[in-house]
Amino acid sequence: MAQKFTYKVLKRFLQYRQCLIKFQHLGFRRVFSYNLGKEAGVTAEQVRKDFSLFSLKGYRRGGYDIDYLLDSINDIFNQNGERLVILAGMGNIGQALMNYQGFKENNIRIVAGFDLDPSKCSKKFSIPVYPPDRIPEIVTGFGVKTAIIAVPEISGQVICDLLVAAGIKGILNFSPILLKVPDDVIVNYVNLRNELETLFFYI
Amino acid sequence: MAQKFTYKVLKRFLQYRQCLIKFQHLGFRRVFSYNLGKEAGVTAEQVRKDFSLFSLKGYRRGGYDIDYLLDSINDIFNQNGERLVILAGMGNIGQALMNYQGFKENNIRIVAGFDLDPSKCSKKFSIPVYPPDRIPEIVTGFGVKTAIIAVPEISGQVICDLLVAAGIKGILNFSPILLKVPDDVIVNYVNLRNELETLFFYI
Repeated sequence: MAQKFTYKVLKRFLQYRQCLIKFQHLGFRRVFSYNLGKEAGVTAEQVRKDFSLFSLKGYRRGGYDIDYLLDSINDIFNQNGERLVILAGMGNIGQALMNYQGFKENNIRIVAGFDLDPSKCSKKFSIPVYPPDRIPEIVTGFGVKTAIIAVPEISGQVICDLLVAAGIKGILNFSPILLKVPDDVIVNYVNLRNELETLFFYI
Repeated sequence: MAQKFTYKVLKRFLQYRQCLIKFQHLGFRRVFSYNLGKEAGVTAEQVRKDFSLFSLKGYRRGGYDIDYLLDSINDIFNQNGERLVILAGMGNIGQALMNYQGFKENNIRIVAGFDLDPSKCSKKFSIPVYPPDRIPEIVTGFGVKTAIIAVPEISGQVICDLLVAAGIKGILNFSPILLKVPDDVIVNYVNLRNELETLFFYI
């Protein structure tokens, strides 16, 4: 299934989910494609087209059931199972992610952290923290395929190479560098500085 | 100038900057559009087209001087002046951003934090932290136009409204909700959970 849908479609579904949760909190039970499109910033046609990709059905007389849509979208993202992640880099950003409620609430579990600094490895965190040479053992042990990189720029590529060699296939990268990875590895970038820079530019 | 260039162009320039810094660290002094395009994941034509938008000049016999390009891109983003930001929400993410080296290194200064929790306001942080009712005073006092929202979902829109009423024109939003803002306010979203979700989907 994964191959059929582009990254943009998936991003829209995550957007739809946010909007649907908002509607649900406001007390709505049913939504029309134009309500959802307006809230998500896309056309009603786009919403219907996206829903038909995953065979999501509406009421015969129009509209969709919000609970049904949310269940279906959660199924698409397999939110019912626990998703495991490892975290490379236990600096400010790494520690914030380790405790991030938004992950815990969505069955995302960070099983271990890694840091070059031995003092980080002996410190008491809410997850165990190991030196990078234990990456292969932990990745294999947990069967984890996804990692977060939150190390300084200078060690970003080195850590990335270690993770990929150990079998990691998806990386969320907070390090402000472009990573070189094989074709079968996906990298999502969060560049905090760049997000602010574009705002400064426009204002 | 700001109106002439789209968000996508700016994002590419920030990407070019990352690549150029990498080349510089590798000891290069000159770069060709195809080197840069390859590294940034765009065509050489795109690089030349983007550079011509800002009248960036190459050598007569081909290629560009890396120092010159970096200086010019920094000028575009006005990196020489100090850029001021306020931070709403002093939870895990807020505290990590407060101490984020990537901001400090780029003349981005967080001048104040805000939190609904009075214990956060009396705690010693590296920046002063105030209750949200002081937002108008601080925004006006510093003449700050840019804010980061890192509050829980439930208070995201309320804080956003306070910031906008006080004169904030650009928001970097970490809260997992879509914000309603007037047309003259720009919002960039960083949704940490969604970035991981798309990885889980593909793997």
